[in-house]
Amino acid sequence: MKNEISIGLLGLGTVGTGVAKILQQHQQDLHHKLGVPVTIKKVLVRNHNKERLSSLDPNVFTTDIQEILNDSSLDIIVEVMGGIDGAKKAIEEALKSGKQVVTANKDVMAEYGHELLKLADAEKCDLFYEASVAGGIPIIRTLEDGLASDRISSLMGIVNGTTNFILTKMKKEKMSYEDALAEATKLGYAEADPSSDVDGVDAARKMVILSSLAYSTEVHLDDVLVRGMKEIQDGDLEMAEKFGYTMKMVGSSKKDEEGIEVSVEPIFLANSHPLASVNNEFNAVYIYGDAVGETMLYGPGAGSLPTATSVVSDIIAACRNLLMEVNGKRMHSAQHERVIKPENSRYSKYFHRLLVNDEVGVLSKLTSIYSKNSASLQSVIQNPAGQEGQAELILLTHQISRQQHLDVLKDLEGTASVISHYRIEGEETA
Amino acid sequence: MKNEISIGLLGLGTVGTGVAKILQQHQQDLHHKLGVPVTIKKVLVRNHNKERLSSLDPNVFTTDIQEILNDSSLDIIVEVMGGIDGAKKAIEEALKSGKQVVTANKDVMAEYGHELLKLADAEKCDLFYEASVAGGIPIIRTLEDGLASDRISSLMGIVNGTTNFILTKMKKEKMSYEDALAEATKLGYAEADPSSDVDGVDAARKMVILSSLAYSTEVHLDDVLVRGMKEIQDGDLEMAEKFGYTMKMVGSSKKDEEGIEVSVEPIFLANSHPLASVNNEFNAVYIYGDAVGETMLYGPGAGSLPTATSVVSDIIAACRNLLMEVNGKRMHSAQHERVIKPENSRYSKYFHRLLVNDEVGVLSKLTSIYSKNSASLQSVIQNPAGQEGQAELILLTHQISRQQHLDVLKDLEGTASVISHYRIEGEETA
Repeated sequence: MKNEISIGLLGLGTVGTGVAKILQQHQQDLHHKLGVPVTIKKVLVRNHNKERLSSLDPNVFTTDIQEILNDSSLDIIVEVMGGIDGAKKAIEEALKSGKQVVTANKDVMAEYGHELLKLADAEKCDLFYEASVAGGIPIIRTLEDGLASDRISSLMGIVNGTTNFILTKMKKEKMSYEDALAEATKLGYAEADPSSDVDGVDAARKMVILSSLAYSTEVHLDDVLVRGMKEIQDGDLEMAEKFGYTMKMVGSSKKDEEGIEVSVEPIFLANSHPLASVNNEFNAVYIYGDAVGETMLYGPGAGSLPTATSVVSDIIAACRNLLMEVNGKRMHSAQHERVIKPENSRYSKYFHRLLVNDEVGVLSKLTSIYSKNSASLQSVIQNPAGQEGQAELILLTHQISRQQHLDVLKDLEGTASVISHYRIEGEETA
Repeated sequence: MKNEISIGLLGLGTVGTGVAKILQQHQQDLHHKLGVPVTIKKVLVRNHNKERLSSLDPNVFTTDIQEILNDSSLDIIVEVMGGIDGAKKAIEEALKSGKQVVTANKDVMAEYGHELLKLADAEKCDLFYEASVAGGIPIIRTLEDGLASDRISSLMGIVNGTTNFILTKMKKEKMSYEDALAEATKLGYAEADPSSDVDGVDAARKMVILSSLAYSTEVHLDDVLVRGMKEIQDGDLEMAEKFGYTMKMVGSSKKDEEGIEVSVEPIFLANSHPLASVNNEFNAVYIYGDAVGETMLYGPGAGSLPTATSVVSDIIAACRNLLMEVNGKRMHSAQHERVIKPENSRYSKYFHRLLVNDEVGVLSKLTSIYSKNSASLQSVIQNPAGQEGQAELILLTHQISRQQHLDVLKDLEGTASVISHYRIEGEETA
């Protein structure tokens, strides 16, 4: 049996520094848990001379990634360098040389996860990626182990802290989008370029990873319907509140006999839904399993130490497997063919906010468009509008297909202009 | 390698029936996940002739527990029979004959968990008990694996669905305690004799299991300070609401350098706390880790299929270990000595509701009792009282020790009668 486990750390940014810190601070606990010491032997850094936040021995630093990947004394490679191509190549090389790999890289796992997990299986190595989704929340593990015996039929997540922070500030403190984004940036929740957060791409990547795992199939980034925060118009948040909903950027995926649907978009979420009270930068994943019913995991979605907690939990799992010599024994092959549902079998309630000319007969013209498309309406409410001669109308539909929804929007052209439209999840309409 | 895994099921009650159902319905998924079939070979029942809800082969039933425990062809024993002594003996025998054990029995695990886990270690067998706490929520696994790398400093749980259901009904529908309990019984959430639920004993057992694991130490049932629902007086729920709190039965444990404190009691929980919005029969466990910060797991705390989901997840974990021949390799030995904090170093804010004679000087007499005990007050509010000549006073303290709190209550004798008193958790005082 091994009497020490050696780690090569690729990257010493926010997460890498956290990993080094936890491994050092919890050295004794880890030794107790595993029976052997776990030591960081090499660390890839960009610049040798930059002062390090960690108290690592300066001799462990290198700027040459090959010095780490070619080091046969290293047992586990921890990839926290970020980026796509370089990181993917590093993970591949590590696996091919028989090393266990832990990564926090959602971009790589969303794009190449299926390929890399197959490679890990073939090389009989572990490839763990808990930290790639929802920072400190052990969601990957819960889907793999905790709910291993259940058939998951839907999964909803607030998996982007930046957009959740912005929406919380907009709702609770009536901030403008711009001010809320500025505060998110100031507090370090948003990147200098926040587009992948606010456009929903970051959340879409996470939903690819979660959905693939939850339904044991291959979901691709292209399969995700994505709408960003720019869809949200002035007054929409208040409108949501008026009807008993909260506007949230939600990643949502569902599976039934017809296939899978995955989306990331701002939605009207019923206030009674457990995700509706997830505020600020927090993340949460809500899972509906046939047997278990509804469960939710809540926690920090980002940050140095929370994310590092997940990385180190993966390191511990890899260590345990190393000590038992059972690495790479999880079969990652997808059990089911990838079947994505067409638009006409994705059902939901919808909120439509329309601007019409305030003239005789317009309401009947409107409702006839819905009825032509067999889109049954739950309520039609007139909203006091700004412009003279115009009226704002709110229409809430019963369950209709996404195809019907799109057809209605198309048919409305010429009769009304669509200010905004959202999917509704959950129950209440006040 | 094994080409089949055989299970002996002890008990075919609510949970046992659920386990049989899930194992049968998910046979294909399990075969895919594990590579071998998992089959229930023997089932202990009380009465041979009783009609079974499951579609199990009638030949698997036996009323003789030894027929199962002595069957060397069985790999895993699943104990869902309930009770304490018989179940403990069965688990011991199974482990001693080299079988893996999965149990849903919180009573046994709270009382004999330390002993049984040591036995499992010695026999190199698995002893899994996910279903013993919070039904369908994978909390044991999260503490063991997901947060393995973190140091947990506090853990709070709504771990009894019956009392949470009752309190939710009392708050949201203004039901009386009696009516809410009757409805809980009608819906099957409460037992015919609900005393272990409403007195807090059931929750205390779960807190013993969770705290032992979270702090890697041996917590005993006697270490838990328990106050039941009968402490709650008319008007207390409204009082909580008035100050921005929700009355919840909460199991709470904390650890610092001085030791551990564990309690189960009705508390005033700040509305902004994630546990405050856990309603009805749902359970949730809130964990604070040094690195991860706050996380929460939410889900069904009981019920046939949710609990069975956890049991079957444990069965899958045992199967994986069997196939890799690595059962019993988790070290369960406690890392830390059991140190329980004394009353004078357990700090909290408190709510005191007092009845005094409405006479000159009573307020100054009262406040001098607090000040004598160095118990600093945050606010003193007079409540319009019922009886003439009497006044009801609400006093909210700053952080004081439990010893100070008890001393104050004692010193109040003769000056005021204490209607009710609660610990306050979380921030707001409106």
